[in-house]
Amino acid sequence: MSNTRSFNRSNSEFRPVKITRNCNIWAEGSVLIEFGQTKVLCTASVSNKLPQFIKDQKLNHGWLTAEYNMLPRATSTRNSREGRKGGGISGRTMEIQRLIGRALRNAVDLEKMQDISIVIDCDVLQADGGTRTTAINGACIALYDACQYLVTNGLVAENPFKEFVAAISIGIDNDDILVDLDYSEDSNIGADCNLVMSESAQVIEFQLSAEKQSFSKQKLDQVYTLGQDSIEKIITLQKESLGIDK
Amino acid sequence: MSNTRSFNRSNSEFRPVKITRNCNIWAEGSVLIEFGQTKVLCTASVSNKLPQFIKDQKLNHGWLTAEYNMLPRATSTRNSREGRKGGGISGRTMEIQRLIGRALRNAVDLEKMQDISIVIDCDVLQADGGTRTTAINGACIALYDACQYLVTNGLVAENPFKEFVAAISIGIDNDDILVDLDYSEDSNIGADCNLVMSESAQVIEFQLSAEKQSFSKQKLDQVYTLGQDSIEKIITLQKESLGIDK
Amino acid sequence: MSNTRSFNRSNSEFRPVKITRNCNIWAEGSVLIEFGQTKVLCTASVSNKLPQFIKDQKLNHGWLTAEYNMLPRATSTRNSREGRKGGGISGRTMEIQRLIGRALRNAVDLEKMQDISIVIDCDVLQADGGTRTTAINGACIALYDACQYLVTNGLVAENPFKEFVAAISIGIDNDDILVDLDYSEDSNIGADCNLVMSESAQVIEFQLSAEKQSFSKQKLDQVYTLGQDSIEKIITLQKESLGIDK
Amino acid sequence: MSNTRSFNRSNSEFRPVKITRNCNIWAEGSVLIEFGQTKVLCTASVSNKLPQFIKDQKLNHGWLTAEYNMLPRATSTRNSREGRKGGGISGRTMEIQRLIGRALRNAVDLEKMQDISIVIDCDVLQADGGTRTTAINGACIALYDACQYLVTNGLVAENPFKEFVAAISIGIDNDDILVDLDYSEDSNIGADCNLVMSESAQVIEFQLSAEKQSFSKQKLDQVYTLGQDSIEKIITLQKESLGIDK
Amino acid sequence: MSNTRSFNRSNSEFRPVKITRNCNIWAEGSVLIEFGQTKVLCTASVSNKLPQFIKDQKLNHGWLTAEYNMLPRATSTRNSREGRKGGGISGRTMEIQRLIGRALRNAVDLEKMQDISIVIDCDVLQADGGTRTTAINGACIALYDACQYLVTNGLVAENPFKEFVAAISIGIDNDDILVDLDYSEDSNIGADCNLVMSESAQVIEFQLSAEKQSFSKQKLDQVYTLGQDSIEKIITLQKESLGIDK
Amino acid sequence: MSNTRSFNRSNSEFRPVKITRNCNIWAEGSVLIEFGQTKVLCTASVSNKLPQFIKDQKLNHGWLTAEYNMLPRATSTRNSREGRKGGGISGRTMEIQRLIGRALRNAVDLEKMQDISIVIDCDVLQADGGTRTTAINGACIALYDACQYLVTNGLVAENPFKEFVAAISIGIDNDDILVDLDYSEDSNIGADCNLVMSESAQVIEFQLSAEKQSFSKQKLDQVYTLGQDSIEKIITLQKESLGIDK
Repeated sequence: MSNTRSFNRSNSEFRPVKITRNCNIWAEGSVLIEFGQTKVLCTASVSNKLPQFIKDQKLNHGWLTAEYNMLPRATSTRNSREGRKGGGISGRTMEIQRLIGRALRNAVDLEKMQDISIVIDCDVLQADGGTRTTAINGACIALYDACQYLVTNGLVAENPFKEFVAAISIGIDNDDILVDLDYSEDSNIGADCNLVMSESAQVIEFQLSAEKQSFSKQKLDQVYTLGQDSIEKIITLQKESLGIDK
Repeated sequence: MSNTRSFNRSNSEFRPVKITRNCNIWAEGSVLIEFGQTKVLCTASVSNKLPQFIKDQKLNHGWLTAEYNMLPRATSTRNSREGRKGGGISGRTMEIQRLIGRALRNAVDLEKMQDISIVIDCDVLQADGGTRTTAINGACIALYDACQYLVTNGLVAENPFKEFVAAISIGIDNDDILVDLDYSEDSNIGADCNLVMSESAQVIEFQLSAEKQSFSKQKLDQVYTLGQDSIEKIITLQKESLGIDK
Repeated sequence: MSNTRSFNRSNSEFRPVKITRNCNIWAEGSVLIEFGQTKVLCTASVSNKLPQFIKDQKLNHGWLTAEYNMLPRATSTRNSREGRKGGGISGRTMEIQRLIGRALRNAVDLEKMQDISIVIDCDVLQADGGTRTTAINGACIALYDACQYLVTNGLVAENPFKEFVAAISIGIDNDDILVDLDYSEDSNIGADCNLVMSESAQVIEFQLSAEKQSFSKQKLDQVYTLGQDSIEKIITLQKESLGIDK
Repeated sequence: MSNTRSFNRSNSEFRPVKITRNCNIWAEGSVLIEFGQTKVLCTASVSNKLPQFIKDQKLNHGWLTAEYNMLPRATSTRNSREGRKGGGISGRTMEIQRLIGRALRNAVDLEKMQDISIVIDCDVLQADGGTRTTAINGACIALYDACQYLVTNGLVAENPFKEFVAAISIGIDNDDILVDLDYSEDSNIGADCNLVMSESAQVIEFQLSAEKQSFSKQKLDQVYTLGQDSIEKIITLQKESLGIDK
Repeated sequence: MSNTRSFNRSNSEFRPVKITRNCNIWAEGSVLIEFGQTKVLCTASVSNKLPQFIKDQKLNHGWLTAEYNMLPRATSTRNSREGRKGGGISGRTMEIQRLIGRALRNAVDLEKMQDISIVIDCDVLQADGGTRTTAINGACIALYDACQYLVTNGLVAENPFKEFVAAISIGIDNDDILVDLDYSEDSNIGADCNLVMSESAQVIEFQLSAEKQSFSKQKLDQVYTLGQDSIEKIITLQKESLGIDK
Repeated sequence: MSNTRSFNRSNSEFRPVKITRNCNIWAEGSVLIEFGQTKVLCTASVSNKLPQFIKDQKLNHGWLTAEYNMLPRATSTRNSREGRKGGGISGRTMEIQRLIGRALRNAVDLEKMQDISIVIDCDVLQADGGTRTTAINGACIALYDACQYLVTNGLVAENPFKEFVAAISIGIDNDDILVDLDYSEDSNIGADCNLVMSESAQVIEFQLSAEKQSFSKQKLDQVYTLGQDSIEKIITLQKESLGIDK
């Protein structure tokens, strides 16, 4: 498998990345992000609709939540739209959007967002593996812009953006470790990892699941090292797209 | 209102149009279409999953159906995703996707699509009025490409594509008649029309509703004439995008 | 088809009409209306439960909304009750009840209905084509009575009823134009129209859809003329049922 | 309370009854039944769609099921339509339609209905107490006609109708026992009973619930005696409506 | 059937009963109750969330409601969890939990529970017939403890517990009358009764349904007598479990 | 926090464990498992109902799936039952039952379960933290017994049980690492981990999430080491409960 990776890349390389900011005229932050053939439209929407638990508990901070969705023909065969015929959304979608939300809440200081709610929407226009990590990488840029909007419009006293977060998928395929799986790789992988880290090299999420192949602590450590390396490079790309010097 | 239309256009002009074909690697036909700031991603998906009524009645033809959806931040304030919390989709969405389906079934000969089902997905990435007519205009191009795919892959004996169809919105605002309303115009209009016509100048749908202002037969005739004129021009654009000489 | 229409009527005639007012002891207005074998029970219910958007926007007027439903055995074979097993109501039902609501909001002056909400319920007891137009024709009478109730009970300063509205279906069947289709005609028609007009000869809705046969502007004009003629006669019947001199 | 009962009746009398057979042109049996101001439209629909458990267990008999519904303005204030916004139907509706089904399965011999399914629909057009018992009383007549249809059309070898069933409500109000409660009586009653019996004086259902007042065995016996007396008279009315000599 | 009843018991005997109080550390009252192999976990939860109708009508009393549920493998073959895929809960579940609620509201004086709401949860861990009666018998003990909690914590001025209520199932099997049916008996019974009575020998519910066999008044009286006898014995067991002298 | 852990345990110790096998007479495998005050009833149900994707793809193996549920009063305040009012189950429940399913599919060889489906039900009777890990630990024992049932009843050629799997939660609280969090610890933890491993010391799942505190690779390694140690001890307890010598 590893000899013929897409875009002629080695096992430890992620796919070419393209970032288009301000792709939506309405949202406070918006990015179209592409990792190879995976394309995700991310928007950050500011409002003052706080979730019920914050109001009930009179908590002294704002909130950030995320929604994830695939267009029906994001995939090689068409999928039904979730929720159209009752029955709610799938477990996979729920898991992904909860992950995106947790990841990005680590990018901001919620206490600097009093009475402010940010909703991150990640809509997958085209899927070829790694949609949840691509979504996090794009959404963090949209979130940065939305935080600037809060500052510019005097909605916050201080900029709540704390630090960048980025994510990458890594797979274990027998003895090989592959970074940034595309769909054909992902669907046959032995074990599958998603790593989310911050700019300050702290781990936010580390989820490693055996699909077909359980694994040793040694493999886990290799996965970690390769993931961390990619995340550092992705954060550099996020900053470049925003014109921030490293 | 009519003196200050977007893009400096007259009452009888539609907005600048941009058509990007093959914007999706998986779909048998795909188009990103823009009318001014309204952007709709249209895909045509071929399958052999026929609806139950065709199987039950052993009908001798294929089928075409459409789904319409807005991304949550397609609009100036964020909308909830339909269907996520039960309760199904809104009446507005149902009406629109039924209209798109009826319109495009007039573009093909279903009897030349035996055992073939085509699903048109129209996802509004950004909305600024006229999303249903923009969707029809883009979807017809995606449908053309999907029909070519059927021919190229030997799935049909003859190309089922019959003729182009296009659509336009027209509004009655006191004495003025405005073509291709954008959102700020549409939300204050007296009466609202959607016209769908074919290349051969036959009417497919003519829907005229009084929102605030009922209207005379004379106005109805004026609406029709201006609509027909725009539709002819839109069909020319559809053909150009496909490299078809008129 | 046109030689053997039900009730021995010509292409331009509608079916025999029967109107029974005050068929319900609870509702502020109620009518059982029959067009041939189509029977619809219409009630108008007055309350002070305004929709959320009126409260949110602090609008200075009341509201009127409609619900449409068929009894399961209104049709020749039994249909399942909508909404019983989740999944909400059908697109057809939504389209119809939105049409009824829009039509009847043109019969009243909402600004004379401050803090007043009227719900129109149209329950089809027996269906034989033209249920939506029959519903509008009956509901307008129930609405008239409900407006009288508002006046009599001092709930409004002025009677909000503005003018009568009526509706008719017309079909295009090759070269023939047929008024007031019954079910056997409707299910094979080439193109299908619903026209809603007011007493003052203003158009409220004009919806013309190609089911099997697209059509020329000339046919559209013929449909309009025949529809208008029937609507004038129906409004006369509505007034007679209320004891109003023309 | 007992001195001023509606229709000047004594505690042991039920309200005036009106039965209109064949009120629906499509159904195999249909009755509009009125007990005072309570009006229920009952249809019996014949099909060959058997429930899954009969097919799974390869049972050697047909089935009968019932659905019950109130129109929104059957009551003095308008109720929402059940099931329209997800969440299914209410416990009250479920209880009633299960009761109607059980009651009427006792009127037929299911083994003489091989491959036959009958659905009873009871739609309350106007409610003034006793809707479930009125529904049973009307539905039994519609069921009789549907059984005749089965015989006439050769769908059964023998008529499956076995015997008439009828139902009555009885209330305990301190020391009084009231037969056939109307709504104003029912809403303040101490304890509430529904009795269903067959023509052969066998009990099918006897449901006695303390709403505000638990009761002694002696009261239970008085309730039973008055109920049985009414049921005999109702069965006579059912037969008369069908032209059957006692 | 009657010669070989479980636990070697006669037709008039109920199964061995086991009551384990305080089986839950969180609930204000909790009981695990077993009738033979039927095991139900009952909790009584105190809160101040009153139902909407009490708030709307500004009623001067508290409320008690009940929920009933079976674990999926409470039965010999696994059942799907209700409500998981939309469509709400079954009619059977609704009937049972409404019965439990009505029964237990007779055990308390709601006027002594101002601003207090008690929710009874009855979860069937293992089912072998009689789950609803077992649930009532256990829930009444949990309710007693919850009422003590109200007193101890000063949430009420006076203890709202009024008297014990208990329930039993009785079946008619041709000429035999069987008390406390287990599942194998229940699934083949001719007619099925649930009797709920209070400590003061007042009837709260008496529900007798013909499943396969309608029945005479004489049988109804026998059912009543045997039921009353069992209920007296069950109330003794309830009191013993609470250390109350008769 | 660490000085006063429940059951007087050190940071690296899990709570006292109690395992009761065969607690359900119907299920092919059943266990009531307790970790301190957390109590989960686990059943394994054997059937031949395979999921659709296995039938569609004609796969040559069986399947195992899991459902997780909390009783409403498993927690210190009562929760609503999921799914009762439409809207499906929560993201949390979905995540947990997907985790349990993935974990236990690693305990069996699905290819030795041809045409066999096993459903694991984990119902939390009482919750005090660690419900998902407790569920996995109990369910693995129930699964072992269900596999024995398959062998004993000749439903498989070879025992599909491969090896034991166990799970533990670990939390990072500033500098402390705490094993087997109870609820009061879990609700304030900085970062939260769930580790699932097999008897052969292979990792199946390693999920580490920053709730309030992102963490270093060094902490991640400490979490892993403590988790592995506990899991070895839990597998010993699983085997003891089954009478298996290590």
